[in-house]
Amino acid sequence: MIGAQIAGFYAELSQLDADAHLLLDYRIECSGDPRAAAAHLASEQSTAQWRRVGADEDYRPRFAAKVVDLEVETVLSGTSYPLAPPVDGPVSVCRVRIAHPHANFGPRIPNLLSAVLGEGAYFAPGIPIVKLLDIEFPDIYLAQFDGPRFGLKGLRDLWQIHDRPFFFGVIKPNIGLAPAPFAELGLAAWRGGLDIAKDDEMLADPDWSPLAERTKLLGAARHQAEQETGVPKVYLANITDEVDRLVELHDIAVGNGANAVMVNALPVGLSAVRMLRRHATVPLVAHFPVIAAMSRLPHFGAHTRVLTKLQRLAGFDVIIMPGFGPRMMTAEDEILECIAACTESMGPIKPALPVPGGSDSAATLARVHEQVGDADFGFVPGRGVFSHPHGPRGGAASLRQAWEAIAAGVPVAEHAKQHPELASALESFG
Amino acid sequence: MIGAQIAGFYAELSQLDADAHLLLDYRIECSGDPRAAAAHLASEQSTAQWRRVGADEDYRPRFAAKVVDLEVETVLSGTSYPLAPPVDGPVSVCRVRIAHPHANFGPRIPNLLSAVLGEGAYFAPGIPIVKLLDIEFPDIYLAQFDGPRFGLKGLRDLWQIHDRPFFFGVIKPNIGLAPAPFAELGLAAWRGGLDIAKDDEMLADPDWSPLAERTKLLGAARHQAEQETGVPKVYLANITDEVDRLVELHDIAVGNGANAVMVNALPVGLSAVRMLRRHATVPLVAHFPVIAAMSRLPHFGAHTRVLTKLQRLAGFDVIIMPGFGPRMMTAEDEILECIAACTESMGPIKPALPVPGGSDSAATLARVHEQVGDADFGFVPGRGVFSHPHGPRGGAASLRQAWEAIAAGVPVAEHAKQHPELASALESFG
Repeated sequence: MIGAQIAGFYAELSQLDADAHLLLDYRIECSGDPRAAAAHLASEQSTAQWRRVGADEDYRPRFAAKVVDLEVETVLSGTSYPLAPPVDGPVSVCRVRIAHPHANFGPRIPNLLSAVLGEGAYFAPGIPIVKLLDIEFPDIYLAQFDGPRFGLKGLRDLWQIHDRPFFFGVIKPNIGLAPAPFAELGLAAWRGGLDIAKDDEMLADPDWSPLAERTKLLGAARHQAEQETGVPKVYLANITDEVDRLVELHDIAVGNGANAVMVNALPVGLSAVRMLRRHATVPLVAHFPVIAAMSRLPHFGAHTRVLTKLQRLAGFDVIIMPGFGPRMMTAEDEILECIAACTESMGPIKPALPVPGGSDSAATLARVHEQVGDADFGFVPGRGVFSHPHGPRGGAASLRQAWEAIAAGVPVAEHAKQHPELASALESFG
Repeated sequence: MIGAQIAGFYAELSQLDADAHLLLDYRIECSGDPRAAAAHLASEQSTAQWRRVGADEDYRPRFAAKVVDLEVETVLSGTSYPLAPPVDGPVSVCRVRIAHPHANFGPRIPNLLSAVLGEGAYFAPGIPIVKLLDIEFPDIYLAQFDGPRFGLKGLRDLWQIHDRPFFFGVIKPNIGLAPAPFAELGLAAWRGGLDIAKDDEMLADPDWSPLAERTKLLGAARHQAEQETGVPKVYLANITDEVDRLVELHDIAVGNGANAVMVNALPVGLSAVRMLRRHATVPLVAHFPVIAAMSRLPHFGAHTRVLTKLQRLAGFDVIIMPGFGPRMMTAEDEILECIAACTESMGPIKPALPVPGGSDSAATLARVHEQVGDADFGFVPGRGVFSHPHGPRGGAASLRQAWEAIAAGVPVAEHAKQHPELASALESFG
């Protein structure tokens, strides 16, 4: 593109109808003229050929995505990541803000993804390296989605969990165990103080632990735990499966006493989650397989903040995400941005409960609480509960003891002197 | 993990039941002991905690993924790509082959993706950089999927296209144009010799070009073109939309005369495609948005070959993929591997038609044909047909003229001397 052609893909943000556009922030590394490259990024994701041969017309004013901000941050001697085929010569690192008219595709998740993470984004001439850093939606667009049915506040009311984190635990061994012993582990953990006993993201509906049988036993165990303890308990069943089984498995699980269901968001697809949301009667919980494949590298793919917003839009009440600590290979800033993407204002869409997870235990609770900055989060150990030397009951108790200390402003290690489960957790996992 | 713990995640391939395992090839960059890192990669994607506290049991023999081959290729002073948080110290570059027991999840695409591209792959301790390079399925596993209904040979019979490439064209302007003029462009291109006139991947069911109205006009235009030319013509309608509208849109499109449908594979989700496959009566065509976000970098994410195989498994008859030429930023080797993934033997799953695309025209046909090595491919210009100086009829004619030259062993430029549409294409796009 040259001169006037490029200009058709630029606009002043203040001159555009804010209600009619999504705002997309990309970081790009481009060869050649950054102004032309950014125009290509806008062009390729919208109306790349904006008129018919021989016709006096221009589809850009109404249909083109437009560059509303372009900032060249620096110039590098080559791309941040070596590519095949290689890109020779200097590349400009730029921040590009694009306003994309959402009437091009409407309130449809697959078409939205195709626009902002499609051929237009990753195959714009001159832009081999690109990352979608953020996306903002006008309220009028958001209003066409349901979002979470319960949301963070709804979950607190439903499960009577106030002024503290939600204590989840991933029942382990995660795969291989038959339903009966699996239910015993859940029951023990609930007795010890766990709120939500959950299936691992790898455990769904295999022959050796059919969902129907497992949910029946876990549902009964949950009722028993509620009777014994006098407080609500949650069995979170993983119903991840082919799209055309989601509704059926939801109904089986909920009919058997599961009172929340988990779906591996990207493997199943966000659109299928949106479909399930219309049908589901219990909270929906997201797990994060596949996301890292497109988000790990600082300068390529899509930022996890974007994926978090999209999961919330699709209707998840709870979003499990890679959390703190070296095991999860995620920068603290990024985790905090994803937590914010769950809870910050998003027009009519309710806040979701963020659950930053990964190798947690009573030994990491104080640190996670401090990093999050408040108690509006879920805490989701696996081995920290189910591999606790005293067993899952002791493992769950150790979490509650750690929280007692934190809430009272007492050092956790100090509190452990009177609480053997906590002491044992600190010794094993600290 | 130490010593005997690690050994439980290793096996001799010859000692395993080949029918019971998927084979996964990863390239990893790991810190520390490669043998321990590879064991973690197997462990985290299967049974990470393989026994209950206090129980004398071991779920690894039956449920663990096992390392069956580990090769250290080289040692680098740091990861190939800088990460946040950074990884300090030397990393070993390894090839790891893992045998994963598919009974852990069964013939379910979302659960398969969760296993091979999930937390286990991207968050295995000590492995910050990982790419899934290939996946192999035993026939007994593949037999539980439908795969393409028609397949490459079925498409040749159905559409009577023999001994030459399939000529597709993306109607442009891709978005913005109302259905009536859009149909006129399609008709002109069919008259010029195009086989398949298609919607752009960004054009689905917007207010300004409702799918029902567009398919009615294009369906009628297709019938007219078939009557005039005496050969089959195809209108490929893009039905990409929310999952719960796919079947409805398929029925509307096909009822109106569309005789193939396109779905943006990853945005909609492969599982939803599998659902659609059971219902669809016409060929299914895949487009590639989002895939580059996880496959562009040589050493991170998932290889496009894997995504190609999965699209074929889900039931696509035609797989559009980034093709040759600098615009598509894809190495020639990689394109050829994806083409092979469409057509090579895959047990009971039929071959799919590969369509390597990107900025093609009559000027690039000879090169693409030579690179592919035979005529078993689809060729999919957009502007090369619809921005041709003579209009879409001339653009389509230029493709057929280029093929006449290639088939006759005549240089395309030589043939152009007698064929003004071809000459014009070479001048405009060459």
